[in-house]
Amino acid sequence: MDSIAQNLLNLGLELPKAPNPLGNFAPYLVDGEYLYISGQISIGADGKVVSGKLGQDLGIEQGIEAARFCAIGILARAKAAIGDLEKIERLIKLGAFVNASPGFTDHPKVVNGASDLMVQVFGAERANHVRFAVGSSSLPSNAAVEIEAVFRIRSDG
Amino acid sequence: MDSIAQNLLNLGLELPKAPNPLGNFAPYLVDGEYLYISGQISIGADGKVVSGKLGQDLGIEQGIEAARFCAIGILARAKAAIGDLEKIERLIKLGAFVNASPGFTDHPKVVNGASDLMVQVFGAERANHVRFAVGSSSLPSNAAVEIEAVFRIRSDG
Amino acid sequence: MDSIAQNLLNLGLELPKAPNPLGNFAPYLVDGEYLYISGQISIGADGKVVSGKLGQDLGIEQGIEAARFCAIGILARAKAAIGDLEKIERLIKLGAFVNASPGFTDHPKVVNGASDLMVQVFGAERANHVRFAVGSSSLPSNAAVEIEAVFRIRSDG
Repeated sequence: MDSIAQNLLNLGLELPKAPNPLGNFAPYLVDGEYLYISGQISIGADGKVVSGKLGQDLGIEQGIEAARFCAIGILARAKAAIGDLEKIERLIKLGAFVNASPGFTDHPKVVNGASDLMVQVFGAERANHVRFAVGSSSLPSNAAVEIEAVFRIRSDG
Repeated sequence: MDSIAQNLLNLGLELPKAPNPLGNFAPYLVDGEYLYISGQISIGADGKVVSGKLGQDLGIEQGIEAARFCAIGILARAKAAIGDLEKIERLIKLGAFVNASPGFTDHPKVVNGASDLMVQVFGAERANHVRFAVGSSSLPSNAAVEIEAVFRIRSDG
Repeated sequence: MDSIAQNLLNLGLELPKAPNPLGNFAPYLVDGEYLYISGQISIGADGKVVSGKLGQDLGIEQGIEAARFCAIGILARAKAAIGDLEKIERLIKLGAFVNASPGFTDHPKVVNGASDLMVQVFGAERANHVRFAVGSSSLPSNAAVEIEAVFRIRSDG
């Protein structure tokens, strides 16, 4: 068993069906050595949107969990795109939008819910990524978090 | 006549002069096989900014039209950058910011105004793109929508 | 002395230690010919976050200075990543988020604080970049501005 499948097993994490996009666009796209994942909103294990605003409706722990759900959706889409997550050479970038009240300041803690999962799944080296984490006054379906991702995949994959 | 010019004709769409940037940056940039378009705000056929917040000043249909205007500005900039839109191999990404009130949730519908136009102009295959669509509490000139884009262009173009 | 070091000297600008990320991610990342810089919040010369919302707590000039501080942090991270800023072939992109009240409309002026510094340091040709500038209702640590960057670096560096 390869390392990523083992890590997913150790985490007790079964990837769901890749979430469909809410609009007229692709959930993922392979362009040369890059795998792009569209903005993934927070969808829970029950298939329902994890919604609400940080600093108003949701606490930090709920935000962290929402970001983790975004990461799980990103992984599900990545697997749908390339079949085997072992083909991922590295995570390059996460772009994270946190649905938050104007007074909220802990976006990095929330988005760590996604970054931490990536490290757990890919290991520290392959998951070492750049990122932005900012506040949005509103998100689709009032989702708590939305995250886009870029991976580098093996060209001989 | 090539397919894109024909599609524009069928849509009755004449591309305007490429909108100038509002700051000290480039409206577009070719880097190798990629064409990057700066964040394009919604500017109407009369050259004026389509402004206002979704969920407060503007209805969904007005938002869809604003996003379509962003896409038209993106196409105008792309043509100014490379001369002939046939050189575009594919649309890779749209990054969309919707000027919205905190309670707004229909960003995907609004941004489809841009994605749908891309499909009409380039066809479903070449326009198949990743995207994020999020809410912004404010945008330059109070524009309703701002969208950035990345295209892949033919290296033998 | 090379041109960039001379430009920094002329500006009286000594780059600070590269700011650490606030979360579990990399401050910068080299991937092939690209150098990615994570979202850099506005940190002043004293090492403290330049905080507050444009259109509410801060005036335009303060916003411009905050964006300039983001650019300085980006340069510090770039230097930490590749050792010598001369290895930078060009700035490709700035993605800028301005912490702003719902009525704010002058994001481009604010973000010019970063774009202008890039031009002063790299010269107009190498600094010619695409950009987006949008409003965020909240940012980490209530920072006034957050900016991500992408550079092309020399492959024969």
